[in-house]
Amino acid sequence: MEEIKIFCPATIANISCGFDVLGVALDSVGDEMVIRKVPRKGIYITKLVGQDLPLETERNVAGVAALALMAESDYEGGFEIEIYKKIKAGSGIGSSAASSAGAVWGINQLLMKPFPTSKLVEFAMEGERLASGVAHADNVAPALFGGFTLVRSYEPLDIIPINSPSKLYATVIHPQIEVKTSDSRKILKTNITLKDGIKQWGNVGGLVAGLFTEDYDLIGRSLIDHIVEPIRSILIPGFDDVKSKSLEAGALGCGISGSGPSIFAFSKGEDIAQKVALAMSNIYKNIEIDYDVHVSKFNTKGIKILK
Amino acid sequence: MEEIKIFCPATIANISCGFDVLGVALDSVGDEMVIRKVPRKGIYITKLVGQDLPLETERNVAGVAALALMAESDYEGGFEIEIYKKIKAGSGIGSSAASSAGAVWGINQLLMKPFPTSKLVEFAMEGERLASGVAHADNVAPALFGGFTLVRSYEPLDIIPINSPSKLYATVIHPQIEVKTSDSRKILKTNITLKDGIKQWGNVGGLVAGLFTEDYDLIGRSLIDHIVEPIRSILIPGFDDVKSKSLEAGALGCGISGSGPSIFAFSKGEDIAQKVALAMSNIYKNIEIDYDVHVSKFNTKGIKILK
Repeated sequence: MEEIKIFCPATIANISCGFDVLGVALDSVGDEMVIRKVPRKGIYITKLVGQDLPLETERNVAGVAALALMAESDYEGGFEIEIYKKIKAGSGIGSSAASSAGAVWGINQLLMKPFPTSKLVEFAMEGERLASGVAHADNVAPALFGGFTLVRSYEPLDIIPINSPSKLYATVIHPQIEVKTSDSRKILKTNITLKDGIKQWGNVGGLVAGLFTEDYDLIGRSLIDHIVEPIRSILIPGFDDVKSKSLEAGALGCGISGSGPSIFAFSKGEDIAQKVALAMSNIYKNIEIDYDVHVSKFNTKGIKILK
Repeated sequence: MEEIKIFCPATIANISCGFDVLGVALDSVGDEMVIRKVPRKGIYITKLVGQDLPLETERNVAGVAALALMAESDYEGGFEIEIYKKIKAGSGIGSSAASSAGAVWGINQLLMKPFPTSKLVEFAMEGERLASGVAHADNVAPALFGGFTLVRSYEPLDIIPINSPSKLYATVIHPQIEVKTSDSRKILKTNITLKDGIKQWGNVGGLVAGLFTEDYDLIGRSLIDHIVEPIRSILIPGFDDVKSKSLEAGALGCGISGSGPSIFAFSKGEDIAQKVALAMSNIYKNIEIDYDVHVSKFNTKGIKILK
């Protein structure tokens, strides 16, 4: 195989209670990439459509992730990468992760899979480091593994795939305001109360249990964030309304996607997820903020070959 | 049914990463209680064998738990309670929880089960409040539900039963020194770093995932406590040695049971659990501290009727 065209899913990180550890891949929202072998050693971003992002390898998240892989490979050739961005940068649904994960997954395919998926996560994390200053794994892990994933530990890196209930749907709305991941990390406090910590790990346990037992009510009850949401939601106009109207429309739970400004809701079944999309959209229509809204199943396979 | 004799299991709370939320019931360690209907309204502790504990209803954890139930029952009669303590008070394996849970479970049986198990947990928590000043549920929930349980939330109370892998065994050693639950709570800090919090909820997610998927290695990797163990273990002589020798003997993980001083280890299979018991015992033999040691499967049914 000399060339590969792939779909790189958008991802929701944190998932309310699971700050920095939980993430999930969407099925119908994502970028496309074409990666091809070239004789000349190196990584070349030859095309970038849909977003205004740097083409230089060292300044592009896909480039940096690919270089991290190449540093551990003895392959003598190189790769050209074309990126067709459909996920907006800074939207909070893993735009940089899709590019980073796509680059290393595609190259690994073309090299006949020398690296396990867990190793690809490490390479892709270098793209995340470039994007946000922190090599977090909660978006790249679900992009690469598919479904829900838990980053149990960063040192050593330990990614745990979690079951994805089949009737669970996501609604994600992206109000078009800018919130940089690096800024939204800065406003977090370095200390939390033990009391809030206990609530948070109770909910993480509940969410993981709910995902394995496919207990939709339990999933909903566990989608509570006592630590990050109260602080970060201040940066997102309309957040409280979006959340309350989503729950009224039947969502199991609702929270900030990654570091925002996108807001996600989980629902049981597509019908409810569509109603939630309508309820969310009405809020931003009323306050005259442009938005994109998506309804999607969860992607359980991760990055997919398109041809 | 006028009288019931029951087995009330010992329990391990916290389970390393799950401070205040996780607990599990043991199969072969526990108290016995006899509860019988009497015409006179009220709760009467008529016998207490094996420990020097108050017989007055209002000062006895079983009495207080039973009174909490009676306050919500329209039953016109009363109950006599005999308690045969085998779990030592202050050992850290749920001595007060066994009595509190046993009292309300037994009475509920004799009344033809008017209350669901979740309600019994609430009543039993009143016994815990008397014992330690805090109405915690992480021992009474597994005593009543059996197996592993998660207290997802306290307000409202939400207990989630978690799968108990069949090859999992506990070794518990009780070094006979006194550590009061109230004292061991006092030394905890009221704030933790967000960084430690993230590690902790990563491990709670990992442990719950490992229990559901019966992934023994994952269970072991998740049995890490970044928050409470570093502080509380100082109160337990020999703790570091017990832990390192348990892991050397093949334990999956090792930590403080409840608020201590008991130390638990989980192992895959009874043989390893027995080796761990030997390794733990040797430590306390060498430093001349008396101890009890138990090896037990997990109890998946909770309190059991003996006759």
